[in-house]
Amino acid sequence: MAEIEIGMGKDARRAYGLDDVAIVPSRRTRDLDDVDTSWEIDAFTFDVPIMASGMDSVVSPTTAVTLGQLGSVAPLNLEGLWTRHEDPEPLLEEVAVKPAEEAWAQLRAAYAEPVKPELIRDRVKEIRAAGVVSCGSVTPNRVEALADALVAAELDLLVIQGTVVSAEHVTKGNPEPLNLKTFVRRLDIPVIVGGCSSYRAALHLMRTGAAGILVGVGAGSTSSTRRILGMGVPQATALADARAARMRHLDETGVDVHLISDGGIRTGGDIAKAIVCGADAVMVGAPLAAATEAPGRGFHWGQAAVHADLPRGARYPVDRVGSLEQVLHGPASDDAGTANLVGALRRTMALTGYATTKELQKAELVVAG
Amino acid sequence: MAEIEIGMGKDARRAYGLDDVAIVPSRRTRDLDDVDTSWEIDAFTFDVPIMASGMDSVVSPTTAVTLGQLGSVAPLNLEGLWTRHEDPEPLLEEVAVKPAEEAWAQLRAAYAEPVKPELIRDRVKEIRAAGVVSCGSVTPNRVEALADALVAAELDLLVIQGTVVSAEHVTKGNPEPLNLKTFVRRLDIPVIVGGCSSYRAALHLMRTGAAGILVGVGAGSTSSTRRILGMGVPQATALADARAARMRHLDETGVDVHLISDGGIRTGGDIAKAIVCGADAVMVGAPLAAATEAPGRGFHWGQAAVHADLPRGARYPVDRVGSLEQVLHGPASDDAGTANLVGALRRTMALTGYATTKELQKAELVVAG
Amino acid sequence: MAEIEIGMGKDARRAYGLDDVAIVPSRRTRDLDDVDTSWEIDAFTFDVPIMASGMDSVVSPTTAVTLGQLGSVAPLNLEGLWTRHEDPEPLLEEVAVKPAEEAWAQLRAAYAEPVKPELIRDRVKEIRAAGVVSCGSVTPNRVEALADALVAAELDLLVIQGTVVSAEHVTKGNPEPLNLKTFVRRLDIPVIVGGCSSYRAALHLMRTGAAGILVGVGAGSTSSTRRILGMGVPQATALADARAARMRHLDETGVDVHLISDGGIRTGGDIAKAIVCGADAVMVGAPLAAATEAPGRGFHWGQAAVHADLPRGARYPVDRVGSLEQVLHGPASDDAGTANLVGALRRTMALTGYATTKELQKAELVVAG
Amino acid sequence: MAEIEIGMGKDARRAYGLDDVAIVPSRRTRDLDDVDTSWEIDAFTFDVPIMASGMDSVVSPTTAVTLGQLGSVAPLNLEGLWTRHEDPEPLLEEVAVKPAEEAWAQLRAAYAEPVKPELIRDRVKEIRAAGVVSCGSVTPNRVEALADALVAAELDLLVIQGTVVSAEHVTKGNPEPLNLKTFVRRLDIPVIVGGCSSYRAALHLMRTGAAGILVGVGAGSTSSTRRILGMGVPQATALADARAARMRHLDETGVDVHLISDGGIRTGGDIAKAIVCGADAVMVGAPLAAATEAPGRGFHWGQAAVHADLPRGARYPVDRVGSLEQVLHGPASDDAGTANLVGALRRTMALTGYATTKELQKAELVVAG
Repeated sequence: MAEIEIGMGKDARRAYGLDDVAIVPSRRTRDLDDVDTSWEIDAFTFDVPIMASGMDSVVSPTTAVTLGQLGSVAPLNLEGLWTRHEDPEPLLEEVAVKPAEEAWAQLRAAYAEPVKPELIRDRVKEIRAAGVVSCGSVTPNRVEALADALVAAELDLLVIQGTVVSAEHVTKGNPEPLNLKTFVRRLDIPVIVGGCSSYRAALHLMRTGAAGILVGVGAGSTSSTRRILGMGVPQATALADARAARMRHLDETGVDVHLISDGGIRTGGDIAKAIVCGADAVMVGAPLAAATEAPGRGFHWGQAAVHADLPRGARYPVDRVGSLEQVLHGPASDDAGTANLVGALRRTMALTGYATTKELQKAELVVAG
Repeated sequence: MAEIEIGMGKDARRAYGLDDVAIVPSRRTRDLDDVDTSWEIDAFTFDVPIMASGMDSVVSPTTAVTLGQLGSVAPLNLEGLWTRHEDPEPLLEEVAVKPAEEAWAQLRAAYAEPVKPELIRDRVKEIRAAGVVSCGSVTPNRVEALADALVAAELDLLVIQGTVVSAEHVTKGNPEPLNLKTFVRRLDIPVIVGGCSSYRAALHLMRTGAAGILVGVGAGSTSSTRRILGMGVPQATALADARAARMRHLDETGVDVHLISDGGIRTGGDIAKAIVCGADAVMVGAPLAAATEAPGRGFHWGQAAVHADLPRGARYPVDRVGSLEQVLHGPASDDAGTANLVGALRRTMALTGYATTKELQKAELVVAG
Repeated sequence: MAEIEIGMGKDARRAYGLDDVAIVPSRRTRDLDDVDTSWEIDAFTFDVPIMASGMDSVVSPTTAVTLGQLGSVAPLNLEGLWTRHEDPEPLLEEVAVKPAEEAWAQLRAAYAEPVKPELIRDRVKEIRAAGVVSCGSVTPNRVEALADALVAAELDLLVIQGTVVSAEHVTKGNPEPLNLKTFVRRLDIPVIVGGCSSYRAALHLMRTGAAGILVGVGAGSTSSTRRILGMGVPQATALADARAARMRHLDETGVDVHLISDGGIRTGGDIAKAIVCGADAVMVGAPLAAATEAPGRGFHWGQAAVHADLPRGARYPVDRVGSLEQVLHGPASDDAGTANLVGALRRTMALTGYATTKELQKAELVVAG
Repeated sequence: MAEIEIGMGKDARRAYGLDDVAIVPSRRTRDLDDVDTSWEIDAFTFDVPIMASGMDSVVSPTTAVTLGQLGSVAPLNLEGLWTRHEDPEPLLEEVAVKPAEEAWAQLRAAYAEPVKPELIRDRVKEIRAAGVVSCGSVTPNRVEALADALVAAELDLLVIQGTVVSAEHVTKGNPEPLNLKTFVRRLDIPVIVGGCSSYRAALHLMRTGAAGILVGVGAGSTSSTRRILGMGVPQATALADARAARMRHLDETGVDVHLISDGGIRTGGDIAKAIVCGADAVMVGAPLAAATEAPGRGFHWGQAAVHADLPRGARYPVDRVGSLEQVLHGPASDDAGTANLVGALRRTMALTGYATTKELQKAELVVAG
């Protein structure tokens, strides 16, 4: 470990972000057609190693189905607008054309409505009915209360997600805290859980029995977690640490937990770099919010932006790039790198000579100033 | 120590600023309600590890009281406008609406008025009368002359502050220089003294008998001390060095001297990072000058900006963020990170699993490019 | 090798770009007139260690001749406009004055026309007829199909160029992939092949029997290869690695393969730095597209920008600097460094005391923050 | 020496600029009045460790006298306008108000006039007559031809200056090159010679018998030497290397050669940092061109900008800061750091506890990101 002396009384480790690294072509190249980008988690195989971010500006039941059909998987935010409102589409339509402050006030009000278990059931059913893997995301605070509804809804895959999720939540209060270790093992749905950003935190999350771990806390230097809370680990390092935890967990238990990189992806090249650092797949928000079908209709926000006392993030406009299909599979019309994410990943694999994403994880990296 | 060869004839040490580091979440998380941000110095306990900067644009007798009631402590500049003028409020009101140059000229003139010991007495009395800890700041040059007045005023806590304050001031001139070691021990008021920015300088200041040390000289890369004087140490390193000095001093004397980080704080995340580097509390100027009650009324300046031959710093406009209460305890209305500083610190503590600021000092850091 | 731990499960190497380094003057200086910038490849000697980039905005048969007469060598893109169209000059004339989108659409359409072997023959003949070395560039995909036409055309020097070219292309498909090792040895034309960007990739390309290697993949931090594909090695490192491969190849075979640095050159100083890192010559695109005679007529583009699904690069306007002669040999009219590239290189050689480019390769470098 | 592997076939050294470092206050402070900024070279003592740059926009006979009276020393460019023209003031007056291109053309024409030995004599006499040290600068190419005129003029101090000056100039041509070693020892005037930027180059220049060495080649990252020629060493490293050469030369010969840092100084803090790195004094151009009396009248240029084929640098406008006295000794009216350079240096010395510039050289440095 590269320990750095910050000063005589405190050390730190040097950490690297995806922007700090680049992939070195090997001595082989490969046909574009021979490249396989698929990945597996639990019993599911997905053609595309890209998960949507469970955000209301990205995933609606409709886009969840479209994304599933395009080879991806998209968790619906089960504490978001679609489980609070019978039909949030008119609201989203309305706020998309309103002045920013007015729109934001109206959205915040919409989040005050309680989550309705029967809507969870209906949304999941709607997605399953289309023949794609149904996936939903919830926060650690709510997950126990919603567990029965999730099982009843026959959800295929559950994401338990927070800014930071630990396997050991400490409380002095009366309500027993969520014991992820018991909960995940008891639940009859495969679970992806995170974020986390260190070897130890990842290892402990793996020990809960989760099928996958979300890796990423305040990964980008412009991240509001980093700016407001002072907390975060650049993503290349977070992934490489979690990769080591995964190897240890595999060694100790024989169970291979998957790593999903969450944060800071803009291009297919970023996806390739996350995979080389150790990810099996990446979670992607803003690039999909830029799709014409995205429910945010040209705006992107996370639920942390709605926080009453300490909002992190905001609702901001995004340039539309093209359809979800174009964002994932092209064609791209310019060289911004924001369309045809999978095509770019495939080309990187072909030009660096790796046939599968598993093989791509072995590629060499340089740290480029 | 990370010695770097600048060239064949000169070495240096690599130093890090707060912007260079980020806090790594541990494997635990914690309830927000279980977090305790208080700190102690001498006989005083403060709920909030934030001291105001003793600057006329930040601390008036009125805001000193408000800040004390909000859990903070605010030294009044005892060589500033409030001890030179019976009532500087009309002046501050006036200059706030004047063109910049005219305003500045009028302010400079106001600083030409002599400091009046009876005003020191009255101001301190006014603050004490409100039931909060009275605190005042003076420069090393003046402190001996004002000592009697300070004791007579029954000041609770004294800050002796300059750009650089050393325990060993050398002079060839006739007037004996201030001997901090004798002075601090003789004075019947607990003293916080600084700034300093190295292990040795901090250690020697601790040996004067001071209750706390201000750590920070030219900490930021845009600091005028750094730019004009070429002098300074990035703050993470300055704190980590002072932390080592504190440990040695504790070991040698059994006395635990407190470290107050002075410089470069903008958000609650910055406060958390300063604590992880070794601070018990932080001194904060500009973020409080942005409060609606701040005496600077939308402007911020330090007394070094008034210097006749070599002004350092200027009077510059600040965006108003909200009331002092909002700046410290929220709610924040956007994700700028400049409001709800304490709320952000609490959240960082909860998400990284540390219950007290003392525990938070043990958190891990990364150096993030 | 400077291995860096990205995290516990992944290492990387620190890499440097040309912008990161600077040349250290030695203890000698030298007369400007005593400096020799020539280089040799196969049986050819060129006065100027600058190859043009085989791009339609830079090299036409006319500019190929001019550049040859100026001491340089300019490969014509044998899959570009000049081998698809009898006379592309009117088209280039036309699009130069059209709105950007319209121009681009028309250019893309022009690239849809098939490559005509008889035009290859005629273009090569035209260049040879002017008494300069004829040089053409093709992609690995096409080179076998065009081999007979190239030999028939009596081409002097062939460049086989792609984003990444490896000596070991893997395919599952039916058509046998290009075996560079057999192909290059069989072909009766000296070959320059690349890009590559690692020791091993360079070494394997050298073993194909190529006379020269193009070094450079995604070299610049703004490179679209780096941004879109996540792939690339900063150029100083790519060259220094290829230099080691060349030394090994020379040691093993007695054959000295030449290194041509491809990417990121703007000034004569950049050329000097590339040579110090290990290059014998540099390939230059944008600086020549800025010449008044350049066929792009104030615009610059690569063929990758025409890609149907995943365009990399774009057609962008360039400021005109002066004639090709001025760009190479001056006089320069300002201090932008974009004119008199050879004059600048000569001056660097004189001021650092090196008489030949071979000697300049020994100069010392600093890494400058 | 901190060797860095650029790649497998090339190493480099890490180098640092003045902007990369900051001075660490020691455990002492000192009275401002007890600080001594003087330095000595040969038989001369100067109160202020600042030499003017021998540029026509900075030094005229008049400003040479003023600067001498202010404690500085200012070499007149003996190949500049004042030795080519009887009275260049009207020309300078004229071009100061002309459009940039016209002005530049007229200035270039003025430099075409030959240098006149009798004007050298008169200018030197004029400066000496005012009772200040007369100093002039010439290029290595011309110095032999002008030697007699310089001795005849009774010049006190000679600066031999070029972008790079070596003690070993190699030529194949007929005219014997300047042998600095013989020339400097023969000449009856103390000589300062440079620029140089490495240990070895500095050492060899010292062995010529020079009284002082100019250290600095392409020091700044925006330097045109760095940009156009690819050549240069960041200044902190150049000084620290020259410092080691000086120590060796002192050890070998008992002769202490002085180091004058040339390049990149903007503030008094920069001067302090150069001294800590090893300089006895600094050469300053732009900060003095900003004085109201400067002959450039609001413009600044070096003679390299006049070069016929490869101009380096340009004529650019400078903001006027105040009189020469204000630039050197204040008062400063704002916190830009460009006025009261000596006052800032004195304050840095006082706050870091060093009484003389010789002592200041021992101060500690940090490398600040």
